[in-house]
Amino acid sequence: MRAAVLHGVGKILLEERPRPEPGHREVLVQVTSVGTCGSDVHYYEHGRIGDFVVRSPLVLGHEPAGIVVQAGPGADRHRTGQRVSLEPGVPDFTCAQCRAGRYNLCPRMRFFGTPPIDGAFTEYVAVHEEFAHPVPDTVSDDAAALMEPLSVGVWACRKARVGPGTRVLVTGAGPIGLLCLQAARAFGATQVLVTDVNPARLARARELGATAILDARAESLADAAFEPDALLECSGHPAATADAVRAVARAGRVVLVGMGGDEIPLPLTALQTRELEVTGTFRYANTWPAAIALAAAGRVELDALVTGHFGLDQVEDALTAGTRDPELVKAVVRPQE
Amino acid sequence: MRAAVLHGVGKILLEERPRPEPGHREVLVQVTSVGTCGSDVHYYEHGRIGDFVVRSPLVLGHEPAGIVVQAGPGADRHRTGQRVSLEPGVPDFTCAQCRAGRYNLCPRMRFFGTPPIDGAFTEYVAVHEEFAHPVPDTVSDDAAALMEPLSVGVWACRKARVGPGTRVLVTGAGPIGLLCLQAARAFGATQVLVTDVNPARLARARELGATAILDARAESLADAAFEPDALLECSGHPAATADAVRAVARAGRVVLVGMGGDEIPLPLTALQTRELEVTGTFRYANTWPAAIALAAAGRVELDALVTGHFGLDQVEDALTAGTRDPELVKAVVRPQE
Amino acid sequence: MRAAVLHGVGKILLEERPRPEPGHREVLVQVTSVGTCGSDVHYYEHGRIGDFVVRSPLVLGHEPAGIVVQAGPGADRHRTGQRVSLEPGVPDFTCAQCRAGRYNLCPRMRFFGTPPIDGAFTEYVAVHEEFAHPVPDTVSDDAAALMEPLSVGVWACRKARVGPGTRVLVTGAGPIGLLCLQAARAFGATQVLVTDVNPARLARARELGATAILDARAESLADAAFEPDALLECSGHPAATADAVRAVARAGRVVLVGMGGDEIPLPLTALQTRELEVTGTFRYANTWPAAIALAAAGRVELDALVTGHFGLDQVEDALTAGTRDPELVKAVVRPQE
Amino acid sequence: MRAAVLHGVGKILLEERPRPEPGHREVLVQVTSVGTCGSDVHYYEHGRIGDFVVRSPLVLGHEPAGIVVQAGPGADRHRTGQRVSLEPGVPDFTCAQCRAGRYNLCPRMRFFGTPPIDGAFTEYVAVHEEFAHPVPDTVSDDAAALMEPLSVGVWACRKARVGPGTRVLVTGAGPIGLLCLQAARAFGATQVLVTDVNPARLARARELGATAILDARAESLADAAFEPDALLECSGHPAATADAVRAVARAGRVVLVGMGGDEIPLPLTALQTRELEVTGTFRYANTWPAAIALAAAGRVELDALVTGHFGLDQVEDALTAGTRDPELVKAVVRPQE
Repeated sequence: MRAAVLHGVGKILLEERPRPEPGHREVLVQVTSVGTCGSDVHYYEHGRIGDFVVRSPLVLGHEPAGIVVQAGPGADRHRTGQRVSLEPGVPDFTCAQCRAGRYNLCPRMRFFGTPPIDGAFTEYVAVHEEFAHPVPDTVSDDAAALMEPLSVGVWACRKARVGPGTRVLVTGAGPIGLLCLQAARAFGATQVLVTDVNPARLARARELGATAILDARAESLADAAFEPDALLECSGHPAATADAVRAVARAGRVVLVGMGGDEIPLPLTALQTRELEVTGTFRYANTWPAAIALAAAGRVELDALVTGHFGLDQVEDALTAGTRDPELVKAVVRPQE
Repeated sequence: MRAAVLHGVGKILLEERPRPEPGHREVLVQVTSVGTCGSDVHYYEHGRIGDFVVRSPLVLGHEPAGIVVQAGPGADRHRTGQRVSLEPGVPDFTCAQCRAGRYNLCPRMRFFGTPPIDGAFTEYVAVHEEFAHPVPDTVSDDAAALMEPLSVGVWACRKARVGPGTRVLVTGAGPIGLLCLQAARAFGATQVLVTDVNPARLARARELGATAILDARAESLADAAFEPDALLECSGHPAATADAVRAVARAGRVVLVGMGGDEIPLPLTALQTRELEVTGTFRYANTWPAAIALAAAGRVELDALVTGHFGLDQVEDALTAGTRDPELVKAVVRPQE
Repeated sequence: MRAAVLHGVGKILLEERPRPEPGHREVLVQVTSVGTCGSDVHYYEHGRIGDFVVRSPLVLGHEPAGIVVQAGPGADRHRTGQRVSLEPGVPDFTCAQCRAGRYNLCPRMRFFGTPPIDGAFTEYVAVHEEFAHPVPDTVSDDAAALMEPLSVGVWACRKARVGPGTRVLVTGAGPIGLLCLQAARAFGATQVLVTDVNPARLARARELGATAILDARAESLADAAFEPDALLECSGHPAATADAVRAVARAGRVVLVGMGGDEIPLPLTALQTRELEVTGTFRYANTWPAAIALAAAGRVELDALVTGHFGLDQVEDALTAGTRDPELVKAVVRPQE
Repeated sequence: MRAAVLHGVGKILLEERPRPEPGHREVLVQVTSVGTCGSDVHYYEHGRIGDFVVRSPLVLGHEPAGIVVQAGPGADRHRTGQRVSLEPGVPDFTCAQCRAGRYNLCPRMRFFGTPPIDGAFTEYVAVHEEFAHPVPDTVSDDAAALMEPLSVGVWACRKARVGPGTRVLVTGAGPIGLLCLQAARAFGATQVLVTDVNPARLARARELGATAILDARAESLADAAFEPDALLECSGHPAATADAVRAVARAGRVVLVGMGGDEIPLPLTALQTRELEVTGTFRYANTWPAAIALAAAGRVELDALVTGHFGLDQVEDALTAGTRDPELVKAVVRPQE
C-alpha cells in the first residue's frame, strides 16, 4: 500500500509499505478520508511539538475515516464493509487513569501520527475494534473524519458544562474554534460570541451559528459587554487568554483548548474573587458516540468546513494549503483517490 | 380587579378584589396570560392535592406572564412596562435549603395557587422582583406563561444530565411530557422515544421532535429495543414506571416527574446491578433564564402547545376543557380579555 | 494445590487441582487469607443467587489476600513476595462501561466465586496484575482480605457523597453495615446512626464508632428525631428500607447496598417533594487505593471484625459459623494453615 | 460599648460607640472571642487590600464568636444565651448568585471588617440570625471564633474534592495552611505533605497531622517524589505556586487559597496534558455546620492554634504580634476582658 511518510522537516515522500496485519481485537480499515490538523502542519514544518520529536520516518494524520475490510483475532464488533470513524488514540485500557474513565490521560496512549506511532495518511490502518466507531450512511466520509476535531469541541463543552442558558465565549475561529462553537450550540447554548483577528473566519463563524462576533484587532472584549459563563479558549495566545479570562462571569469555567507557550499568565484576583474554574483539555474521552449522533442528526455542520481535497500524493499540498489560502478551514486527504 | 376564586369543589366564582399592593422588593404585574395545569384541575375537582387542602376561597393559576406596572419599596430591577414571566414560588431565601441553592425545597416556599397562597387567575398579582423574569418581544405572552411547565422539563433534564448522545425515554405525552421532550432535544439529545396511550398525543410528540413514539396499549417497551440513558417519567402510573425503569441502561438516570400514588414499586435488582440513579423533581430552581433563552432562540415550541384561550369568566371552562377535548394540550386564561 | 469446591447445595469437597498458570499480564498469588461473605453462604445453601446458578463444581471465595509468587507474560508491576489484596472482579477493560470508568458495570466482568468463575478458597489464584493491590506491612493478611467488603463501604459513601457534616443512617449492622459505618466516619461523618434488630451487632457498631444506635424491634426510626442526609441501606428488608427512606432529609441520598427481594416499594411523595436521590451499588470501582490507605492509616478497624479463622478443610464450618454464633461478624479462611 | 477603630494606617483607637440595634431577623451578639487574620494586619499596615480601601474609620475583625443577647424583629432561631460562631459575610440572599447557592459570590455581600462594613473588634455586633451558628459547649469560645478560618479549609477541600485516598499538598503553613491541612485530614486524606520556609511552622504542621513536611529553602518539591491529587495553595507566592502546580498528578485539582500578586504564571502544558483543574476560593459558603461538627467531634484542633490573647485595648498588639514572634499562629482578641 502507499503511505505519505515524513522524512524530515518539510519533506514527505510517497512510499510503498506492507499493509498492516490487524492484531488482537484490531480491525483493518481502508482509509477513505483524513482531515489535516494544525499539529500535522507543525510536525511537517518543525519536526517536533514540544517533547514529541520526530526521530525516524513517520506517517502523519490522525483524523481518519474508512471502511472495515478485515477483522483481526478476537475482533467481532464490526461486519466487513462497515463505514467507521476512527478514534486515533488507543490507551492501554488497564492503568489507573483508564480504569477511572480518563483514558485520554493514559501514559501509554498510542496516538496516530504522534512519534513514534504512524498515522493515517496511508491506504490502510489497523485499530482496536472499539475505536472504530460505526457511522450511518447519512454521514459523509469527510464528516466521519471530522469526528476527531468535533470531539475536541464536545470534550471542551463537557469540561465547561455548557448547556441551555450558558453564555459562551469562543476565542479563535480556526477549525477547532468553529467546532467548539458548533458543539456549544448543540449542547444548548443560545449565546455564543466568537472572536478572532481574521474577518473571513469570523464571517464563517457567523454562518455556523455564532450569535455575535468580535474582531479583536478592532474591538476590545472589555467593551463588548458580554459576560460569558464559559470560555472555550482556542487561540493559544497568552495575552488574549488573560483578557478573555478577565471577562468571565462569577463561577464561570475556562477551558484552555488552544496550545500556546508553556506558561500562561492568569489573573489571580479574578480566579479567586469569582471562583473561576480553569482547566485544559488533552484530546477527549468517550466523545465519539455523541459526536456521531450530533452529525447524524444535523445538529452540526462538518462538510461545510472542508475547503479542499487532496490525494495521497498531495499531502504536502494539503499541509501547506493554509499558507496559500487565508480562508482555508480544513484540507482533507483522500488516500483512495 | 376581577379574580376567579375557587369556593369549593367544582365551584369558581368571579369576584371583585382589591388590587394587591406590592410589598418590599415586589412588583405589581398585570397578568396577560396564565397557563392551566393538571394541578389546577385537581384542586377544582377534588379540593386538595395530598396534604394541601383548600380550606378557604383560593385563586388558582401558577403559570403567569404579564407586564410590570408598579414597583414596591426597594424594587428597582424592572422598568414599568417590562414584559415578564413569573416564577410562581417564592422561597424565604435565607433557610439552609435556599442558602444551598435548592430554593425549590424551601420549607417556607409560598407558591401561587397552592393553599393558602392565591394564584394568578386574576388581573394583577404582586411578586418578588427577582421572580419576575424579563422576556424579549419575540416571546409571546402565552409562551411567557409556559416558561413554568418548560422549567419542569429543563429541571428534569438537568437532573437526568441530558446532553448530546443521551438516549432519552419520556413516558407520558401530556403537556409536561411534551415539554420534557422538547427540553431534552434542546439539551442536545438526538434520540427521544415518547410513550403514551393516546394516539393524538403521540402524533403531537412526533411533530415536536420525538424521534420515535410507542403506543403503550399496542406495544411493550421491552420489545422496543430502546435502551435509554435517561428516563423522564411523566405518566405517574406506578406499573408503567416500573416497566420503564427496567428498560434503562447501565448507569442510567430516572427522573420521576409525574405524580401518582404515594408508593412506587421499583425494581431493586435493576437499580443495583445497573447502578441506576432515581430521583424525583419538585418544581425547579434557577431555570427561568435557560427556559427563556431556549424559547427566544426558537429551540422549543411553546405557542404550538396552546389549544384554547379563555377569559377570566371562563376559568371553569378552561379547567374542564380537557374532559371535552382529548386533543387538548394547554388551555390558557387571558385575564385582560 | 488444594481447593474447596462446591459440588451442590450444602456440599463442599476438598480437592487437588492443578495450580493455575498466570496468563498475559496476570500474576500468580499464594492465598493467605480469604473473607467469607453472605453471598458465599447463599450459594452454599441455595446453589444460586438470582440469575446466577451454580451448574458445575465451583470454588467460592471473593475476598482474598495473598503473596505474589509468579508473574505471567507481560506482567511487571509487582516483585515476587509482594503482599497484595485482590480485587476479585476483572472486567474486559475495553467496553463502553469500562472506558467510562464504570468497570464494575462491565457486562463481561469475571468475578471470583460467581458461576462459572472459580474463587479463592484455594491455595493459589491468578489475577490481572492491576487487580493485585500492594499492601504495606502494617496491614495484616486478614485486613488485606477485608479490603473487599471495605470497598463496598467506600463505594457506598462515594455514591452518597458522605463528607464532614453529613448525617448518616446505616440500616443493618452486619459486616457490610459495620464497614459502611466505618467508611462513613473515615469520609468525615461525625454523626452516624446505626439500626439493627440484633443487640450484639448494635453494641459492636457502638464500639466501631456509631454515634447513636437504634434497636428496630424496640424503637421506631420516626421517633428517633434523626434526619439523615445519607442513608446507607444494608439490611435488604423492603419495609425497613421504605421507612428509612421516609426519614431522609431534603436533597438526601439513599444508597441501596443490601440485597433483598426484586421489588422495593419506595415513597414517591418523599422522593419528589424532597428530591431524594436513590441508587443501588453493584460492587465498586477504583476503591482499593483508598481502602488500603484508610486501613494503613488506622482510620478503619478491620482485624476487629474477624471472629474466627478456618483452614481450607473447614470451609463448610466457616460458611455455617453464622448459624451457630449470633455474634459472628466475619469468618476468615486461611488456605495455607 | 467599646470598639477598636482603625483611623488610618497603623492607628487604632479605642472608642465608645452606641450598641447596635439588631435589625429585621438579626440578633445582637456579645462578642467573646475574635481571631485576627492576615487581612486585618494588611488593612492596619496598608489601609487597603486591592480595590478595598479604608476611607473612613473602620472596625476590623471578622472571626467572631459570642453569645446571643437580644433578638431583633422577626428573629426567632436562637434563645438568649446561645453561644454562637458568626459567619461574617451576609449576602443579599436574593441575587442570581445567592439563588444558585453561591452566596459567597454575591455582589452585595456585606462582610465584617471590610470597608465600609464594621467588624467585630468590639463588644457587641448584630448579624442575621441564620449567620449566627450555635456551637455546643464542648467547643471553646476561641474555637468558635476559628470556625471562620477553618471554613476556608473546609471550602478548599470541597473545591479540591478531597476524600480518602486523595494525596494532598499544602503549600504554606501559616494559619490557613494549618487549617487546610487539618480539614484535609478530616475529609479523609491520609497523605498530606506541607511545605513552608519556616521550621517552626513546619514542626507545628507535623504536630497537627502532616504526614510529611518539606522545607522549601532546603529541598525542592520536584525531588520529593510526591505526586498530589490536590494542591491547596496557601502561600500566595507566584513562583512557588507554579512549581507546586507542576507537581500535581493527572486529573489533579489546584485550589488557590493564598492571595498574592494579581497575575500568576501557570504551566499551560501541565494544565492541558494532565487536565488539571485550577480554581480560586473566595471565602466560603455553607461551611459552618460541617466546621462545627468537626470541631465538636475532635476531628480538628483549633485551640492549639491560639498563641496569644489580647484585650480590646490591645488590638494593635494583637495585629503586630506576628512581627515580634515568628512562632505565632493565631492571636485572639477577647473584647470582654
